[in-house]
Amino acid sequence: MISSQRQAEFLNTFVESIWSEFTPLAIKTNSINLGQGFPDWIPEEFTTKALVEQANTPQNHQYTRARGDLQLVNAISDLYNSNKEIGFQEQLDPLTNILVCNGANDGLYISLCSFINPGDEIICIEPYFDVYPTGIVMAGGVPVFVPLRPPKNPGPNISAQEWTLDESELRATITPKTRGIIINTPHNPTGKIFSKEELEMISHVVVENNMIVFSDEVYEFLVFGDNKHVRIANLPEMWDRTITICSSGKTFSVTGWKIGWLIGCKQVINTVGLYNQYKVFCVSTPLQRSVATCIRQSMDGQYFSMIQNRFKDRYQQLSQLLEEHKLKAVKVDAGYFCLVDVSGVNFPYDQNSDVPRDYQFCRWLPVEVGLAAIPTSAFYSEKNKHLAGNYVRFAFCKKKESLESARQAFQKLSQYIQ
Amino acid sequence: MISSQRQAEFLNTFVESIWSEFTPLAIKTNSINLGQGFPDWIPEEFTTKALVEQANTPQNHQYTRARGDLQLVNAISDLYNSNKEIGFQEQLDPLTNILVCNGANDGLYISLCSFINPGDEIICIEPYFDVYPTGIVMAGGVPVFVPLRPPKNPGPNISAQEWTLDESELRATITPKTRGIIINTPHNPTGKIFSKEELEMISHVVVENNMIVFSDEVYEFLVFGDNKHVRIANLPEMWDRTITICSSGKTFSVTGWKIGWLIGCKQVINTVGLYNQYKVFCVSTPLQRSVATCIRQSMDGQYFSMIQNRFKDRYQQLSQLLEEHKLKAVKVDAGYFCLVDVSGVNFPYDQNSDVPRDYQFCRWLPVEVGLAAIPTSAFYSEKNKHLAGNYVRFAFCKKKESLESARQAFQKLSQYIQ
Ligand SMILES: Cc1ncc(COP(=O)(O)O)c(C=O)c1O
Ligand SMILES: Cc1ncc(COP(=O)(O)O)c(C=O)c1O
Repeated sequence: MISSQRQAEFLNTFVESIWSEFTPLAIKTNSINLGQGFPDWIPEEFTTKALVEQANTPQNHQYTRARGDLQLVNAISDLYNSNKEIGFQEQLDPLTNILVCNGANDGLYISLCSFINPGDEIICIEPYFDVYPTGIVMAGGVPVFVPLRPPKNPGPNISAQEWTLDESELRATITPKTRGIIINTPHNPTGKIFSKEELEMISHVVVENNMIVFSDEVYEFLVFGDNKHVRIANLPEMWDRTITICSSGKTFSVTGWKIGWLIGCKQVINTVGLYNQYKVFCVSTPLQRSVATCIRQSMDGQYFSMIQNRFKDRYQQLSQLLEEHKLKAVKVDAGYFCLVDVSGVNFPYDQNSDVPRDYQFCRWLPVEVGLAAIPTSAFYSEKNKHLAGNYVRFAFCKKKESLESARQAFQKLSQYIQ
Repeated sequence: MISSQRQAEFLNTFVESIWSEFTPLAIKTNSINLGQGFPDWIPEEFTTKALVEQANTPQNHQYTRARGDLQLVNAISDLYNSNKEIGFQEQLDPLTNILVCNGANDGLYISLCSFINPGDEIICIEPYFDVYPTGIVMAGGVPVFVPLRPPKNPGPNISAQEWTLDESELRATITPKTRGIIINTPHNPTGKIFSKEELEMISHVVVENNMIVFSDEVYEFLVFGDNKHVRIANLPEMWDRTITICSSGKTFSVTGWKIGWLIGCKQVINTVGLYNQYKVFCVSTPLQRSVATCIRQSMDGQYFSMIQNRFKDRYQQLSQLLEEHKLKAVKVDAGYFCLVDVSGVNFPYDQNSDVPRDYQFCRWLPVEVGLAAIPTSAFYSEKNKHLAGNYVRFAFCKKKESLESARQAFQKLSQYIQ
C-alpha cells in the first residue's frame, strides 16, 4: 500500500461486518438464509404501486427539501399525531420535528456525529445491532458496554422480557465523559420490548447525568398481540433529550428503499439537519414520496395489524419447527428475530480456538446442514462475547414456504443434539 | 437549550447552507429560479421508465450488496471500460474498483471521512462547491484554501479557462500536515475544464507530497463541443491515489435520485467500503437498478451527445440573453453554471455592511427583478470572499421556456446597468 492510501486511524480497528461473511456463505452453500434481516416476501402491492406512480410523475425526479420532502414529513406527522397511542405525546410539527434520512442506519450515524465530541462516551446495551459501536467510533466517541442479563436460572420457556438491564451495572458505566446512550426497542436480536419501568429507570439515569438518548425504534410497528411499544421520548423530561430513529424499510417490508426518519425536538432536529445538509443535502425524492403514499394508505391501521399478524405467525411457525427439533427459542414480543439456544448441539467445536462457539456454529451450520444464522457474539464487545456463546440469531421475516423449506435442515440439525 | 442538546463543537462554526436562504427566497418572491443546480425539464422518458420497471419487479425492494448492486457496478464498469476515451486507463473491476453512494455529495463525504485523521489538512480550490470545507471539517480535517485567479487584464470575452491555479500559490499551502486535495473538473461554478497541463502540475505536487486526491467529476458527461474532460486518475502515478466521484443525478437529469459512485483502486475502495457499510450499509436497490438500466441504454453514446447539445444550447441561450442586456458571462466549457459579472449593476449596495456585494445583489435581485441567482462568495473562504464580489452564478440547466421567461427580468435588470 502506498502511503497516500493510509486510512483514517480509527478504521484500523474495524473489520468487515458479519454480513459480508455470512450472507456470501449462505449463497455459496446454497443454504436457507435465516440470517440477514430482510423479508423474502414480495412487498404489499400498494407499496410497489406507490413507487410506480411516483416514478411516473414527472415532477418527482429533482432535489427536494433537505430535511425531508413535504409530502413525507406531512404524512409522518399525521401518522403519529392521529394516534397518540402509537405516536408521541408531543404534537409533531412536520417542519421542525422530523428529519428524513437514508435509512435508520444512516439516521443513527448522523445523530451520533452531530452530538459527539472527541472522547465522549456513549453507552451501548449488549447485545446490540452491530453498527452501534462502529457508529460511535466514526463519530469520534468511545462506546461503553453494558449487557442485558438473561435470567440466572431460566425456566423451560425463557422469554426476551427476562433479559434485563441491571440498574447498578448501568450506573457503574457512568463517568464524567458520559454523553449519551443508545437504546433499541423493540430489540434486535432478542425480540424484547423494553417495559415502561425499564425505560423509566434508564430515563432517570439519563436526566441525572444530562445525557442524550438515541432511541432506535425501527420495529415500532412490528409488535405482536397485546404487547405495547413504549417510547422513551414520551416519558417525563425525555422529549427534549431523545432522538427517535425509524425505518420505512422495516415497517413496509422494503428494506431496499433505505428511507428512514428521525423524530425529536426542534433544537435537536436543527442540529442534525445542519450536519446532514452538508453531508448528503437531501434524500431521494421519488422514494420519499412513495413512503408518504404508503403511510397515508396505512393510516386506517389495517396494514399495520395485517403485518403484525404475519410476523407473529411466522415467528410461531419458526418456534414450532424449532421445538419439534429439540431446539429452544427465547420467547419474543416483536420484531424480525429470535435467539435460539444451541448449547445442546454437538458439532465439531474447537475449544482451543479464539473463535467464539456461536461463530464456529454459524460457520458449520450452512456447510453441514444447509441453514444460515447469525452468531450472537457479533453483537457483543470483546470482553462480553462469552455471554453469547450459546445463542444464535434466526430471522423469521421469511415466507411460510421458506420457513417450511427449512424443515429438512432442522431435522438434520436435530441429529446433532444430545 | 438544555445541555444534553449541546451539539458537536465543530457544528458551532456551521451556518445554514446558501440553499436554505436562496431557494426559499426564490419561491417567496415568485422569481425565476436560476439559482439551484437542478434541471427543471422532465427527465428523458427512458430514465423514468427504468424506475417504473424496476419498481414493478418484485425482487427489487430488499437490501442489496453493500458496495453496490451487481447490476449497477457491472453497468458502470462496462460504461467506462467500453470507451477508454471517456473512461479510465485502468480496466475497472466492478467488484473492487467501484463503490455506490447516496449521490456525489455523500460520496465525497465518506471519502474524506475514510482518509482524514484529526488535524489533517486538505486543500480546497476556490471557488469551490459549498460542501467541500464543511465536509473536511466533519471528517476532522482542516480546509486550506487556494484560489483560482481570473486574468489580471481580462479581455472583453473572458473565459473560464483563463481562471487558473498558480503553482507557487498551490505549493505555498503545503505543510507537514497536508494530506490531500479536492479538485473539481468540470468545475462548479466557473464551468472550467481543467486542462491536462494543469492537472499534471497538480499531480506533481500530489506525488511529491504523498497526497490523496478527491476528484469531483459530476459533470464528466456534460462537456460542450470539442472540449475534452481529462481525469486526473489517468495521469502517471495517480490511479493509486485518486478517488473519482460521479453522480447519476447530474448525468441523467435526475438530481432527486441521489445515486452516485466512487471509482478508485482496490485498496482505496476497500477503505471507503469498510466505512460505508457501518454508516448506511447499502444504497437503494430499485434506484440503483434504474441507474443501471439508464447506463446500459446510453452506452451507444446517443443520449450523451443529445444531452451535451442540450446543455450547450441552453448555455448559449442564456449567454445571448445576458449579452442583449449588457451583462457579461464568463465563457463556459461544461456543466450547469456560468458566472456573470455584475460589477456594472447599480443597485442599492451598502458599502459599510459586512455582507459581500454579490450577496447583497442576490438578496436584492429576486425582490426587485424577480430573478434568483447564487452569490459566488458563498464558494470562497472568509479571507478570499473579496475575490468574488463582482460575480454571481446563474444555472442554465433550465428549459428553453424558463430561460426565455427570464427575458423580462433581464430587461428590468438592464435598467440598473450604468
Ligand atoms: C435495530 C436496527 N436498527 C437499524 C436497522 C437498519 O435500518 P435501515 O435499513 O432503515 O437502515 C436495523 C436493520 O436490521 C436494525 O435491526
Ligand atoms: C461539483 C458538485 N459536486 C457534487 C454535487 C452534488 O451531487 P449529488 O446530487 O450527486 O450529491 C454537485 C451538485 O450541485 C456539484 O455541483
